[in-house]
Amino acid sequence: MSEAVILSPDADKKADFPGLLTPEGAPWHYLDTAATAQKPQAVIDAISRALGKDYATVHRGVYARSAQMTQGYEAARDRVARFMGAKSADEIVFVRGATEAINLVAATWGMTRLSAGDRIVLSVLEHHSNIVPWQMVAERTGAQIDVCPLTDDGRIDLGALEALIGPRTRLVSLAHVSNVLGSVLDARKAADLAHSVGAKIMLDGCQAAPRMILDMAALDCDFYAFSGHKIYGPTGIGVLWAREELLESMPPWQGGGAMIDKVSFQGTTYAPPPQRFEAGTPMITEAIALHAAIDYVDALGPDRLFAHEAELARKLREELRRTNAVTLFGPEESAGIVSFALEGVHPHDLGTILDEENVAIRAGHHCAQPLMEHLGVPATARASFGLYSDENDIAALMRGIERTRRIFG
Amino acid sequence: MSEAVILSPDADKKADFPGLLTPEGAPWHYLDTAATAQKPQAVIDAISRALGKDYATVHRGVYARSAQMTQGYEAARDRVARFMGAKSADEIVFVRGATEAINLVAATWGMTRLSAGDRIVLSVLEHHSNIVPWQMVAERTGAQIDVCPLTDDGRIDLGALEALIGPRTRLVSLAHVSNVLGSVLDARKAADLAHSVGAKIMLDGCQAAPRMILDMAALDCDFYAFSGHKIYGPTGIGVLWAREELLESMPPWQGGGAMIDKVSFQGTTYAPPPQRFEAGTPMITEAIALHAAIDYVDALGPDRLFAHEAELARKLREELRRTNAVTLFGPEESAGIVSFALEGVHPHDLGTILDEENVAIRAGHHCAQPLMEHLGVPATARASFGLYSDENDIAALMRGIERTRRIFG
Repeated sequence: MSEAVILSPDADKKADFPGLLTPEGAPWHYLDTAATAQKPQAVIDAISRALGKDYATVHRGVYARSAQMTQGYEAARDRVARFMGAKSADEIVFVRGATEAINLVAATWGMTRLSAGDRIVLSVLEHHSNIVPWQMVAERTGAQIDVCPLTDDGRIDLGALEALIGPRTRLVSLAHVSNVLGSVLDARKAADLAHSVGAKIMLDGCQAAPRMILDMAALDCDFYAFSGHKIYGPTGIGVLWAREELLESMPPWQGGGAMIDKVSFQGTTYAPPPQRFEAGTPMITEAIALHAAIDYVDALGPDRLFAHEAELARKLREELRRTNAVTLFGPEESAGIVSFALEGVHPHDLGTILDEENVAIRAGHHCAQPLMEHLGVPATARASFGLYSDENDIAALMRGIERTRRIFG
Repeated sequence: MSEAVILSPDADKKADFPGLLTPEGAPWHYLDTAATAQKPQAVIDAISRALGKDYATVHRGVYARSAQMTQGYEAARDRVARFMGAKSADEIVFVRGATEAINLVAATWGMTRLSAGDRIVLSVLEHHSNIVPWQMVAERTGAQIDVCPLTDDGRIDLGALEALIGPRTRLVSLAHVSNVLGSVLDARKAADLAHSVGAKIMLDGCQAAPRMILDMAALDCDFYAFSGHKIYGPTGIGVLWAREELLESMPPWQGGGAMIDKVSFQGTTYAPPPQRFEAGTPMITEAIALHAAIDYVDALGPDRLFAHEAELARKLREELRRTNAVTLFGPEESAGIVSFALEGVHPHDLGTILDEENVAIRAGHHCAQPLMEHLGVPATARASFGLYSDENDIAALMRGIERTRRIFG
């Protein structure tokens, strides 16, 4: 029995996702899950209920419904903590998304701990959200950025990382899984290397959280970020996990309600984490829907999802190679993400023709321009799988590629 | 005919709001709309559809559904621009909420335009979200905060403002409507005063946007912020409006995808506004639901809503005065928000007893501790009206207050 059907037949999940049909009710072959995942009905129902008959604000109401909403919001925090193997829910800060999580760390930990001559290590394959915040903090503090190269097959080169880090390295910030190549980082090894010189390590877990078992203790990292909408949850919410003692030591970033202890014009004092980092009315209903999304993913098992999507990636690579007209980027072992170039066809043209066949791929730089430069292409075509993907989606993609070749042939 | 029924009988709106019933299906007398508004079914349907059969990411997809979602997201921006009388949609930045909007202005405009000795004018009645960000920027830049006093009846004293501002005043940032007292600022007068010394003016429009016609040109202000969840929209989204030339001149705040022009490790360039200020995947579905909320409010007419809620506030003040056991705070003319103290009863106890009667009020400092200090109380009870409020809600509140008096009598 093929591993690609690891989730079948008991788990044909497409029916749970209203987004996986065309307006005419035909199957939509959605191969852009690395950009954003479709939502199961359970998530949509959770947010509808939270905005409807359950709706109230959190933290400040004296009436029962507000207390219940507060419980729901904090239960979501607890759920995320359990999902990530956090020590406590106090290590979980709700943010808009992974981008904001990284900016938060850069603006608080970074701005207070970095100074001229300090070094931040990133890699060639980072998403812009894990580059630009560090460039901004480097510009302000005088810290400098070192760029870790990749292996020939597109993984972060841990041998090179070891050579690159040194006594002035304060932070190593890396993608746990590449959003372009699907390369999986040996995160524990990277953490050990960072810690060997006394540096902290941050992981951008956007692509890992939807398909890997997260265990903060086992990874031994210091900061971890992911986005809700990539893990089958709503837009507008994400998670920053950080070690409790790090959060404790970080100054607030945004000021406002809920993050304070006492406000006066003579001087204001701040609440402990995580509230210190959640100024204003939070993403209440988004947190509750994220809870539903994590329940959904956890019930299926992130390790089974990884196996399922990695197997689909292997099959797609095989099929693409068979065309003799495709350049494949990235490692053979990929977390469900395949980037490629079709000879003589711009990725955008391919994407447009595939769209006519109800196949959705991504074409572009994937917010990873330095990686594009490294690969020597302006853009790639990218197919990425989700828990609902199956071999029919691959077959539809391959039919579309054949048609494209005929058109451009 | 009473103005309080200005929205009736053609506009008994309660039925549109699933949140206005108790779990048992009884009427829930929700008098906490200043904290957060209940959502009409149209808003819930909009977000459900956006997360369901319409779902895709924005800005980067080559397939039709992503292009449609991008249109939907940008149509929301256009709608907000029209709602506010903005010159162009490029003046609208989507943020998490008003708190983030103010923090954004403080961290970008404030950090680059303020220096030691410059003065920022706030008022005694500001919400913490319009105090703490300025305290943070003052601490970093050496700017100082001046606090404008209030009139005896709890309005920002524009005579005192005139005396307070001077050649070093760089910014005046004020609540358009007080979240505790309902006092309405003569915003145009305040803007003229600020501009007379070359200062900019920011308005916190959280309580104004749901119940006043906004016209940025007529107000002649420089920055304006409001939260989606207070205008019958979803959580997790808000709006910063700023004059185009101000946005143009402001450096980016958060780095990441979508806000860049070109990223390389040699140096990164940024997109023009508003994209420059929207790093990462935005609040896509929240923007679409905010569009639905603004359609709903605009169809009723914000000026009619103001009249409706102000009339309810007048009636409630009358009823409360009649008890001879209540201290009323704030001006007689209030934008639908009434703060009061019931003799011998802590506001929290009142709130708890009212909850048993299916009446929800707020009790606390309302994120306005300096105002509480000014009023000489640790907390107030606050009843605030929305477009769905009516005289039955007032009657239920008064019955609850009578019962509380019997219990505490």
